[in-house]
Amino acid sequence: MKYNNLDQTQAFAELKKTSQADVASLLTAERVTSLKITEGVFTYYYAALPVTEPVVDLLQQLSDEQQLIEKYKLILSGEEMNTGEHRKVLHHLTRGAVLPTEGNDKLKEKELFYQTERTKINEFAEKIHSGKITGSTGKKFTTVIQIGIGGSDLGPRALYIALKNYLRSRGDQKMNAYFISNVDPDDAAAVIESVDIEKALFILVSKSGTTQETLTNRDLAVKLMKGQNIPGFNPEKHMVAVTSRTSPLAASDAFLESFFIDDFIGGRYSSTSAVGGTVLTFAFGAETFGQLLEGAHEADTAALDPDIRKNASLMDALIGVYMRNILGYPVSAILPYSQALSRFPAHLQQLDMESNGKSVNREGLPVAYKTGPVLFGEPGTNGQHSFFQLLHQGTDIVPLQFIGFKKSQKEIDIDIDGSMSQTKLNANLAAQITAFAKGNKNKNPNKNFSGGRPSSLLLADQLTPKALGTLLAHYENKVMFQGLVWNINSFDQEGVQLGKILTRQILSGSTTDDSLLALVEELR
Amino acid sequence: MKYNNLDQTQAFAELKKTSQADVASLLTAERVTSLKITEGVFTYYYAALPVTEPVVDLLQQLSDEQQLIEKYKLILSGEEMNTGEHRKVLHHLTRGAVLPTEGNDKLKEKELFYQTERTKINEFAEKIHSGKITGSTGKKFTTVIQIGIGGSDLGPRALYIALKNYLRSRGDQKMNAYFISNVDPDDAAAVIESVDIEKALFILVSKSGTTQETLTNRDLAVKLMKGQNIPGFNPEKHMVAVTSRTSPLAASDAFLESFFIDDFIGGRYSSTSAVGGTVLTFAFGAETFGQLLEGAHEADTAALDPDIRKNASLMDALIGVYMRNILGYPVSAILPYSQALSRFPAHLQQLDMESNGKSVNREGLPVAYKTGPVLFGEPGTNGQHSFFQLLHQGTDIVPLQFIGFKKSQKEIDIDIDGSMSQTKLNANLAAQITAFAKGNKNKNPNKNFSGGRPSSLLLADQLTPKALGTLLAHYENKVMFQGLVWNINSFDQEGVQLGKILTRQILSGSTTDDSLLALVEELR
Repeated sequence: MKYNNLDQTQAFAELKKTSQADVASLLTAERVTSLKITEGVFTYYYAALPVTEPVVDLLQQLSDEQQLIEKYKLILSGEEMNTGEHRKVLHHLTRGAVLPTEGNDKLKEKELFYQTERTKINEFAEKIHSGKITGSTGKKFTTVIQIGIGGSDLGPRALYIALKNYLRSRGDQKMNAYFISNVDPDDAAAVIESVDIEKALFILVSKSGTTQETLTNRDLAVKLMKGQNIPGFNPEKHMVAVTSRTSPLAASDAFLESFFIDDFIGGRYSSTSAVGGTVLTFAFGAETFGQLLEGAHEADTAALDPDIRKNASLMDALIGVYMRNILGYPVSAILPYSQALSRFPAHLQQLDMESNGKSVNREGLPVAYKTGPVLFGEPGTNGQHSFFQLLHQGTDIVPLQFIGFKKSQKEIDIDIDGSMSQTKLNANLAAQITAFAKGNKNKNPNKNFSGGRPSSLLLADQLTPKALGTLLAHYENKVMFQGLVWNINSFDQEGVQLGKILTRQILSGSTTDDSLLALVEELR
Repeated sequence: MKYNNLDQTQAFAELKKTSQADVASLLTAERVTSLKITEGVFTYYYAALPVTEPVVDLLQQLSDEQQLIEKYKLILSGEEMNTGEHRKVLHHLTRGAVLPTEGNDKLKEKELFYQTERTKINEFAEKIHSGKITGSTGKKFTTVIQIGIGGSDLGPRALYIALKNYLRSRGDQKMNAYFISNVDPDDAAAVIESVDIEKALFILVSKSGTTQETLTNRDLAVKLMKGQNIPGFNPEKHMVAVTSRTSPLAASDAFLESFFIDDFIGGRYSSTSAVGGTVLTFAFGAETFGQLLEGAHEADTAALDPDIRKNASLMDALIGVYMRNILGYPVSAILPYSQALSRFPAHLQQLDMESNGKSVNREGLPVAYKTGPVLFGEPGTNGQHSFFQLLHQGTDIVPLQFIGFKKSQKEIDIDIDGSMSQTKLNANLAAQITAFAKGNKNKNPNKNFSGGRPSSLLLADQLTPKALGTLLAHYENKVMFQGLVWNINSFDQEGVQLGKILTRQILSGSTTDDSLLALVEELR
């Protein structure tokens, strides 16, 4: 397998010679109905992006030159594609083998391991839902509280929020979930105050078992619970752990049960492992979480297609690289037209920016081109009344990705002035894509819209558990493909270490840096 | 008064000749302790920004040349500084006159108007808190639900979340607040389901009285409440309005009471008017909201100082322009080290990007330089475990602004491994500023940190109502000063209109654009 930097490819040299297409004239009805790719229950539309067929041909060439599908298969086969940390990258396996595992004993063993942990979670969930396992004072568990940070928080929290109303309105929600993440002590205190702790089950999530914020919050939560002086209350009977077998937590007997992950599941890729699976199965049941895994597995399988015109995550990745490295756009926005996805962009911030915010290639050599962009987003139509002004008339162009659904989650709606709310929501979505692309000439320069602002759309029928799984995996695979195009390691995060080291030095009193000491003094 | 574009000033020409300072070598203990500006209960630190004294001198010159303080005084005096819409800009007046209003009858009249509405709100709040006014079935109101979008949602919601735990832990919270904003029908349905509607009081907020999302959500909420078939329940006895006197809502008698604003309070600047004041006074009482106004007023007064070394919002604005227009950074991040400020960056996105995401100057002529940047942010330490990787080691430099507090809001804390959580939180903050600025050389390029990444800090003792008011006004004034430097109108938002027009065309069936019709068809 060849590992070339992006600027060593022929396709990149050719792409640099292309001239930028005008989105305003590109956006035709014919493109809308033809430039779309099916990915499980989703369809990816790229009619309003500045790519002509010759550009798409070159992106296909880039994909082939960089051997993206072959490298994806290496990941699936258990190669050590996390080069910096010498680790396999196996999050796909948590939702089922994409390639046959026969003859690959080590992979088969991992497949079994993830399945076993899932079964353990399902059985434990069954026992708390049925009341076989109760809290220390005999009350049924009705609330689950996840303590974790980063990937142990953002992904699981975004998925929980995305499905809560869908399941609640169908009578399928088993437990309410809360999340404690920040080392800011107000975070834990607010959650503990707002729940009945006799009915609360905690999930302590830390792969290493050493995460400062998480261990601190565990101890703070225990202190606050003990402070309530409830006779017979025992915090150890209210907590399970999600960790790796080798962590200090795994050896502890202060938990009702422990569910395991391993080093081959990166934090930001862990939503479909026990890290997300435990809280989501407790909250919504095994069947719902199974549907989410099924949706993710469909996206993983669809990502195998070497034809970029048939592979949505691959096409999304390649056009993203084109807009980043050829057109030079440093920021992208994700705009879900569904309130349920309110925290999904925050998860994508971690997924994308932590994976591809790198300056060295997989061999550790500096790259001479831009890598991952900044990503932000809020749900539409809310964003329209906020930062869309800059997106429409600002001095920079920001590529947009809309996420839409034909039906609302609850299907509770009202006809006002001849249209339902969901119809209004999607009318707004279609209007925005058009307004960004085509703009509108106006003699009053203040009311003039230059247009030429690119956007794509991921569309599904409804935000179901399965659709959410597909959406999650779409972005994981998109980020993976972009990392492979850039020839960087998308699976480590050395950039978070320096801050941790300096924090430890401050707390242990071993700092010698004068300006840092001065800062600490100001903050005291 | 002269209104010159930025590139017509002498200072800008001089600034372009300066060479970029290296933050790594700039950050000394001496700068940390000396480069700070008091702004009410906050202190602004700019030691870790790439500005030398000669650059600051030129920024002072820029401020003088652009007559920023004089123009601020024009705003305060009631000049029509919203040139596009021919409106005054009077949000400062909602927290008290910054300049004497004597002899300015029109301004005096407005001052009285805002005061009168505030008094009306306080009196009404007193009646619902005491139970003098109850719901239609005789139950005391315990929940307030704001229906609004954009500035009628983001600011008030961010402020409510910021203060909720502070007041709750002091026994000073009067009512729980919820917010409905998105035209996505799932948003309203989820809120209505989760509250006891007999005890719920709605605030319908729309300045024009015609906001599609808000009126739709009002009707959907009423439908859902009627669907509960509660004997004697009358939705009209559960709703007040915040609107302008001339709006269709003002004429309606379907409200318990109406509180008024006017066209001189822009949506994103309306948190200290009745738009934010009603919900915050209902939730927390008049005294708390009064403290917030007091804090904002202090920042407004501090912003009068023509010496940029003594004016935090002005210095913050000018250094922002320097980093945007001289150093060329297109994105900024806001990183509050307080979980209570979790939605504050979303408010700032609207405030900043809707105000200064413009391409024409106040006369409507195109400008030849960049204006407002993209802004995003999440609370630390959460962000550290998410997108900080890109901030530390990505290929682009993103200027950062940290917000910190010496004490937590609840002051409930625990000592683990020799330090309290709040100490750990602030150790992280100090460590991050240092790590970004100085980096760390490492032979392993994967673990190498280039440094040179600029940041500033806004620090206060505690996130009290007063501190929050100061913080809010700091950013309003910063954004105002930047708009004045760029010679743009920060107070209109024509960029949101085109999408609205196209949406109406779709819903009324009058669209003739083929690609738009094709999009609508795909979304059906």
